[in-house]
Amino acid sequence: MGRLVQLLLLAFLMPGLAILLPPRLKALSNLHLSTSFTSRSSIVMKYSIHYMEQKALAGHLHTCIIQLHHHRTPLIDHFGFNNEKTFKQRYLIADQHWRKEGGSVLFYTGNEGDIIWFCNNTGFMWDVAEELKAMLVFAEHRYYGQSLPFGADTFQDPKHLNFLTSEQALADFAELIKHLKRTIPGAENQPFIAVGGSYGGMLAAWFRMKYPHMVAGALAASAPIWQFEDLVPCGVFMKIVTMDFKRTCPNCSENIRSSWGAINRLTRKSTGLDWLSKALHLCTPLKNAQDVQHLKDWISETWVNLAMVDYPYESSFLQHLPAWPIKVVCQYLKNSNLSDKELLQNIFHALNVYHNYSGQATCLNMSETSTSSLGSLGWSYQACTEMVMPFCTNGVDDMFEPFLWDLKTFSDDCFKQWGVKPRPSWITSMYGGKDISSHTNIIFSNGDLDPWSGGGVTRNITDTLVAIIIPEGAHHLDLRANNAFDPMTVLLARSLEVKYMKQWIRDFYASLRKKD
Amino acid sequence: MGRLVQLLLLAFLMPGLAILLPPRLKALSNLHLSTSFTSRSSIVMKYSIHYMEQKALAGHLHTCIIQLHHHRTPLIDHFGFNNEKTFKQRYLIADQHWRKEGGSVLFYTGNEGDIIWFCNNTGFMWDVAEELKAMLVFAEHRYYGQSLPFGADTFQDPKHLNFLTSEQALADFAELIKHLKRTIPGAENQPFIAVGGSYGGMLAAWFRMKYPHMVAGALAASAPIWQFEDLVPCGVFMKIVTMDFKRTCPNCSENIRSSWGAINRLTRKSTGLDWLSKALHLCTPLKNAQDVQHLKDWISETWVNLAMVDYPYESSFLQHLPAWPIKVVCQYLKNSNLSDKELLQNIFHALNVYHNYSGQATCLNMSETSTSSLGSLGWSYQACTEMVMPFCTNGVDDMFEPFLWDLKTFSDDCFKQWGVKPRPSWITSMYGGKDISSHTNIIFSNGDLDPWSGGGVTRNITDTLVAIIIPEGAHHLDLRANNAFDPMTVLLARSLEVKYMKQWIRDFYASLRKKD
Repeated sequence: MGRLVQLLLLAFLMPGLAILLPPRLKALSNLHLSTSFTSRSSIVMKYSIHYMEQKALAGHLHTCIIQLHHHRTPLIDHFGFNNEKTFKQRYLIADQHWRKEGGSVLFYTGNEGDIIWFCNNTGFMWDVAEELKAMLVFAEHRYYGQSLPFGADTFQDPKHLNFLTSEQALADFAELIKHLKRTIPGAENQPFIAVGGSYGGMLAAWFRMKYPHMVAGALAASAPIWQFEDLVPCGVFMKIVTMDFKRTCPNCSENIRSSWGAINRLTRKSTGLDWLSKALHLCTPLKNAQDVQHLKDWISETWVNLAMVDYPYESSFLQHLPAWPIKVVCQYLKNSNLSDKELLQNIFHALNVYHNYSGQATCLNMSETSTSSLGSLGWSYQACTEMVMPFCTNGVDDMFEPFLWDLKTFSDDCFKQWGVKPRPSWITSMYGGKDISSHTNIIFSNGDLDPWSGGGVTRNITDTLVAIIIPEGAHHLDLRANNAFDPMTVLLARSLEVKYMKQWIRDFYASLRKKD
Repeated sequence: MGRLVQLLLLAFLMPGLAILLPPRLKALSNLHLSTSFTSRSSIVMKYSIHYMEQKALAGHLHTCIIQLHHHRTPLIDHFGFNNEKTFKQRYLIADQHWRKEGGSVLFYTGNEGDIIWFCNNTGFMWDVAEELKAMLVFAEHRYYGQSLPFGADTFQDPKHLNFLTSEQALADFAELIKHLKRTIPGAENQPFIAVGGSYGGMLAAWFRMKYPHMVAGALAASAPIWQFEDLVPCGVFMKIVTMDFKRTCPNCSENIRSSWGAINRLTRKSTGLDWLSKALHLCTPLKNAQDVQHLKDWISETWVNLAMVDYPYESSFLQHLPAWPIKVVCQYLKNSNLSDKELLQNIFHALNVYHNYSGQATCLNMSETSTSSLGSLGWSYQACTEMVMPFCTNGVDDMFEPFLWDLKTFSDDCFKQWGVKPRPSWITSMYGGKDISSHTNIIFSNGDLDPWSGGGVTRNITDTLVAIIIPEGAHHLDLRANNAFDPMTVLLARSLEVKYMKQWIRDFYASLRKKD
């Protein structure tokens, strides 16, 4: 916990790191990533404790955090020859269950954050290591965690950020695998399998697509590889968020939809600003229209976060969260026909579930959801360059205030913040958009509660490019460690995933024998 | 012809363009490319005339040279966001035989030279256009021909050269195809097929591997994708060159092998230098040991060139060449037990076949084989960065003086010349080396006379990754226009190639119908 705080402080203290996005953009930018990351990083904490309490898993936390850190020095620029500089890339290895004979290597394609958090947060890999005789490798993504190519200058300007792309990250992974095969006796002739969740899942899938000679297959969990251009409707994400609340109780999403109007009406007067600041127990009182917009973005983000991490068991964020948190939230939002003030008082209780479940906070801090990890900076840049994910709301199919996707504004804001312009169609050019049927051996898993499933692959494309839907599943629930409260659906999903992976491993060894 | 000379002059006149390689390196560097390019560009001339003489093909030369030039402005750096500059990329289109209904697009992935030369030199595409209802597109490779990203500064320094990589070139092709699909009504839902020869064949294969959503398949003619690291023995290339002479008559290769010793013995004295300069009718007399090395490199290059373009019919270089030129050359080298002077007088006659078939030259110019195209500069840089192809000779399995592949020396020389260091294992990391079996729909064709076949794919890898061997075939003979003197083997190869392409086209339309 101390370490985490330290990292967060670092993020705040690094010069030039302040995110100066206009609120709208910030809300959306947060959407993509830092919120999702917040959620994940937070879950880690719970899992740490969880591991500690279980005998068989007792070593894992230790493994991720203290032991077996390694570094590689890949080139900063794999795609040009005018720059020979290298940087220190961190990766973790756990080989307790690895077998040199007939084993395998599960390779986590690290995403936008500290790799230790992902390591602690991907219990699935630990759980299946013995069955697959697998070595576990967790590779940190460049520009995140401790793998900062230019130290304190990393995020300084477009020049230093120029090498933060998915292509460079995939090349890092390729070079790392080559290094492992060369240096770990026994690893050379074993199948590697890419595993990743969220953006890490996208990377796992893309890695198999672009470097099929490096990995025999990929498990891409909750990977929204189609959340680009117009491959899916821009409103699908918020529609799923809304559905998650609506299915819990219809009034819940209705009340949230009504809350925006209530906030708008109340905050037209300064007395309303005061009243609302107090009603919501905000640490910093609202002063103007800009603060009100910030408040609405922060509340929206809270609902989005809840949708992503609506897990079936208690989990621990920076704050605690109960099992099925949306159910708990919606208990405060089931009444209809409330006055604006009554409604917003209920909204406070609902927010309190997410932001103050422990009951120890004396006020709610609006700056808390968004910047709780080092990764948010890097992702904000990535979202402004390659990872241009259009989002929109219409207030009808979803419970949010209408918001049009406006590439021009988005682009201008990106240029203001980072000095770069997004290339919204590049990812589709590079990775094929919906036209990916010639690839093989990728599992796309998606929980049907997860708003990211809207941009994911949710139907089989071929026999070896398969989709697994997890009813009752939130954001990459399948990658989390086994839990007594897991719904049957995720257990089935995991066992299907293992079945596919075993097939890839068998095929790999069969083709190896053919070569001999 | 005037145009060609003009381009050559340009190459010589551009400041800072002189290639200052040590002779050994120069010989090898020439090996890879500029020689092979010389051959190809030269053949063009013949074909031009050839086309002109044939009624049905009369329009082609015209098409390539005068009409239908187009330009696109792709980004100079596809893989970074700090540089938004674009450059003018040239491409050619011929759509005489294209059908909007059920048609296809053959897309030539341009290699290291002026795209018009390749266009004129790839008669195969013109010959099959009608049968495949195909539009022909020829895309120029960045840094070659007229597609110079920085004009006169293009080759100035490592900074300007930084964007000359195969990855950037493939991304140019991808963006161009996207552009064509968007702008040419009817092209959007048609299968594109990549076609290329030599380095262009490597690009065609790699393009299908990396962008399978862009092309339904690839014809990679004489593409030495395995001429890297130790994927094939470094001596295989010169061994095949030697075989080409030996099969014509055993004494031919023996005499060439003996010639190096004869040169060395004779040139120990200055009288020998004079004698040899006269015997070989050199335009510039030999003065010292360095000149002698240069002479031997130039002679070696001549034999290599002859092996590559040992075509069954007369073809026209900057100088003319007879049909089966090695046969003609070897007529002068069939006697054994000659004195050093007798042998070298015969060598002169042999060289004269290549360098002075027209009989119009009054002396032989040693600077002539190597720098006869603009492309040699760019290729020299590519050979010093990504395209590190190890070559060696031992004088036993081949007819050349022994030469060890020495990466260190090669690297140092590259750094001296270009200020960059080669990354010899990168191509294997990126494109998979021999581990390419998960890809589909690539034809690798190789002539068995072609020294480049040693680094090519000459066995079927899977049902859809197939090798075609062309007995009696030199460097991508199959891509050349039909000729009355074509051996049956190349006619069979071409018809097999068309058969595969038709299958890809059928599969493409079948999967399109499934989607509807």
